[in-house]
Amino acid sequence: MTEFIPPGTRFIPLPDAFAMKRGGTLDGARVAYETWGELSPERDNAVLILTGLSPDAHAASNEGNGDAGWWEPMVGPGKPIDTNRWFVICVNSLGSCKGSTGPASINASTGELYRLGFPELSIEDCADSAAHAVRALGIGTLACVIGNSMGGMVSLAFLLRYPGIARAHVNISGAACALPFSIAIRSLQREAIRLDPKWNGGNYDDASYPESGMRMARKLGVITYRSALEWDGRFGRVRLESDRVGGDPFGLEFEVESYLEAHARRFVRRFDPNCYLYLSRSMDWFDLGEAGLGARGGLSRIRIERALAIGVHTDILFPLQQQQEIAEGLGDGGANAQFIPLESPQGHDAFLVDIARFGPAVGAFLAAL
Amino acid sequence: MTEFIPPGTRFIPLPDAFAMKRGGTLDGARVAYETWGELSPERDNAVLILTGLSPDAHAASNEGNGDAGWWEPMVGPGKPIDTNRWFVICVNSLGSCKGSTGPASINASTGELYRLGFPELSIEDCADSAAHAVRALGIGTLACVIGNSMGGMVSLAFLLRYPGIARAHVNISGAACALPFSIAIRSLQREAIRLDPKWNGGNYDDASYPESGMRMARKLGVITYRSALEWDGRFGRVRLESDRVGGDPFGLEFEVESYLEAHARRFVRRFDPNCYLYLSRSMDWFDLGEAGLGARGGLSRIRIERALAIGVHTDILFPLQQQQEIAEGLGDGGANAQFIPLESPQGHDAFLVDIARFGPAVGAFLAAL
Repeated sequence: MTEFIPPGTRFIPLPDAFAMKRGGTLDGARVAYETWGELSPERDNAVLILTGLSPDAHAASNEGNGDAGWWEPMVGPGKPIDTNRWFVICVNSLGSCKGSTGPASINASTGELYRLGFPELSIEDCADSAAHAVRALGIGTLACVIGNSMGGMVSLAFLLRYPGIARAHVNISGAACALPFSIAIRSLQREAIRLDPKWNGGNYDDASYPESGMRMARKLGVITYRSALEWDGRFGRVRLESDRVGGDPFGLEFEVESYLEAHARRFVRRFDPNCYLYLSRSMDWFDLGEAGLGARGGLSRIRIERALAIGVHTDILFPLQQQQEIAEGLGDGGANAQFIPLESPQGHDAFLVDIARFGPAVGAFLAAL
Repeated sequence: MTEFIPPGTRFIPLPDAFAMKRGGTLDGARVAYETWGELSPERDNAVLILTGLSPDAHAASNEGNGDAGWWEPMVGPGKPIDTNRWFVICVNSLGSCKGSTGPASINASTGELYRLGFPELSIEDCADSAAHAVRALGIGTLACVIGNSMGGMVSLAFLLRYPGIARAHVNISGAACALPFSIAIRSLQREAIRLDPKWNGGNYDDASYPESGMRMARKLGVITYRSALEWDGRFGRVRLESDRVGGDPFGLEFEVESYLEAHARRFVRRFDPNCYLYLSRSMDWFDLGEAGLGARGGLSRIRIERALAIGVHTDILFPLQQQQEIAEGLGDGGANAQFIPLESPQGHDAFLVDIARFGPAVGAFLAAL
C-alpha cells in the first residue's frame, strides 16, 4: 500500500492529460529515473535501460545512492555498460510502485490512492512515458535502448512508436508478444492475488494485506524465472536441517521450498499488489503485431541501425524462439541484427545473475557502436 | 469430502494392521480395482496398470461399467494393451478418493473420516497395497506392470520391493525420484490448498469447501502437465468472444485462461483436497535411491527381464532425462531395457492424448513379450 522509492531517485513530470492507450488520462503523473556517467556535448552517448516488472530505476550505485543496484555488475565505469563512455538512464516503469506513477500513487485529482481507479495500463503507455522522459532530458536520439524481460517488450513498442529515437537496441530475454504459456502463468499469479480475501477488490492496507496471494504469485514467478536444470544442480533433493519446519505435516521440508519461501518473504511487502496486477496484465496484452501484422510483421516496421537479441535455452517464460524472432524481424526491417542464444542454466532471470555470459555479449555490442 | 467411486469398481481388502512405510497402520482398508480380459489357466498373462495421481481404476469401458475410461483408446480388444491376449488389472492408488482407502475414507476404528488422521502416505505404501491386490487375485508373476506418471514411481518401488513379481515393465513419463522443479510446483499446489481458509486444517465439508485453493492447484497442474509448444499452436493469442467475462477488469480474456478455468471446474469438486495433499506429498518424498544408492543405483537393484521407458521432450514435470535414467538403470540391473523418447507436443500428459505415438510404442513392446 506504499510506494518504495530508493533514495536519490529523480523525477520527470509527465504532461497533464497524458493519454493512455486503452483510454483514460493521467494528470500530475511522473516518471522516476536515475543516471550514470555524463551526457556528451553532442548529446549522442545516451543509453536507456528499460526494466522488467519489478525493478526500480536504481540499476547500479551512483552519486545519489551508493547501494548496489539490481544490475550492479553490468553498469559502471569499465563495466559492460561502460559509464566512462555512455550516459546511462534507467527509468522505472509507469504503473510501478517504485517512483513512477501507478496504482499505488496518489491520484492528484482526488487526493486518494488510485488503486483500481488507475487507467488500464499497456506496454505502450510505459513506452510513451519513457519517450517523454528521454525528450525531457534533452536527448533527440539515443545511442542505444536496452530492455530486459518486460523492458524488452517496452523497448519494441518504444522503437515502433518513435522512429529514429534510437540508433541501436539490445533486447534481453524479451518478446514481441505474449504467448499462452506465459499468459497462463501470469493469469494464475493474478488470480492468486485476487482470490486472497484481503486483496478486497484492491482496497487493502498494511494492516489487512493480501500476503498469501502475493506469496503464491511470487513463488510461481520464481519457479518460472529460473530453470529445472539449475535447481537439479543447486538443490537436488537436499532437505532442511530441521525436518518439517514448525511441526506442520505439510510444512517446508526441502531446500527448494525454503528458497522459494525466502524469495517470497522478501517480495511480498516490497511490491504493491495492485501495481503487480496492472503490470502483469500489460504483458499479456502486449502484441507488437496487433492489427493483423503478426509479431514478425510488427518487428519489420521498426527502423533501427543495429540490434542484438539475447536469450537463454532454459527460459520457459520468454522462450528462446521469441528472441530469435526479434532478431529476424528487426533484420527484416533493415537492421544489422544479431541473435545470441546463451547456454545459461538460470532461465529467464539469467541476465540478472549470469554476468559471465551476458556481460561480454552486451559489452561487445556496445563497444562496437 | 466424498469418495468418487465409479460403478462396477471392485475391492480387495487389505490385511488389518497394514503397515505404512513412515509409520502407522491401516485397519479395514481396501484397494479398488477393475479388470479386462481373462486370466489364462497358467495365470501368466496378467498386466497391471498403475495410475497417475488423479485417475480411478476405470481405465477403459468393461462389463461392469460401459463408460469410456481415462485410457480408453489404449485398453481393449485389439488395442495396444490388447485384452484379447492380456488379463489387465488397474488398481486405484492407496490414499486416493476413488475407491481405495485414503484420507476421504471412513476410519473403521473411529467411524469418522480419516482426514489428516490418515497415516503419512508414501509411494512405497501404494506399491505394497498393489502387490497385495495382485497376490489376492491369485497371480504369482505379472507378465508386465505398466506405470504412468506417479504410477511410474509406484511401479519402480513395486519392482524393487517384490523381486520376481513381474517379468516386464513399461514406465511412462515416470521418475526414479522427485527433482526440485517438480517438488517446487507440487509444494506450491499444496500451499494453495492449505492457504484457503476453507481447507481449515483438513476439516472442510461440502458446504464449506476449499474451492479456491483446489482451483489454483489444478490450474497449476494443468499448466505443468501440458507444454508451451502445444499451447502456442492451440491457443495462440486468441481472445474469448466476450472480451473480459463478467465485467471483471482482471477476469478471463484469453482462450488459454478459459481452458484452465474449465479444467479446474471439472476437477475441484471431483477430487478430495486432503487426498490430493497426501498423494502430492508422497511424490516429493519418493527416491528409489534413498539410503545413499542414488536413483540410478536403486534402479540397478531391480531384477526384471525386459523394460521400456517412454517420455516426451516437452515434459517439464517429469523431464525426459528421468525416463532415460530409468532405462539405463534397469539396464544396469540386467534388464533388456529400451528408451523411447517421443516428439509429442503435449508434455507430461501426452500419454493420455497422443495415442498415435504412445499406442504403437506400448503395443509393440507388449506384442513382443
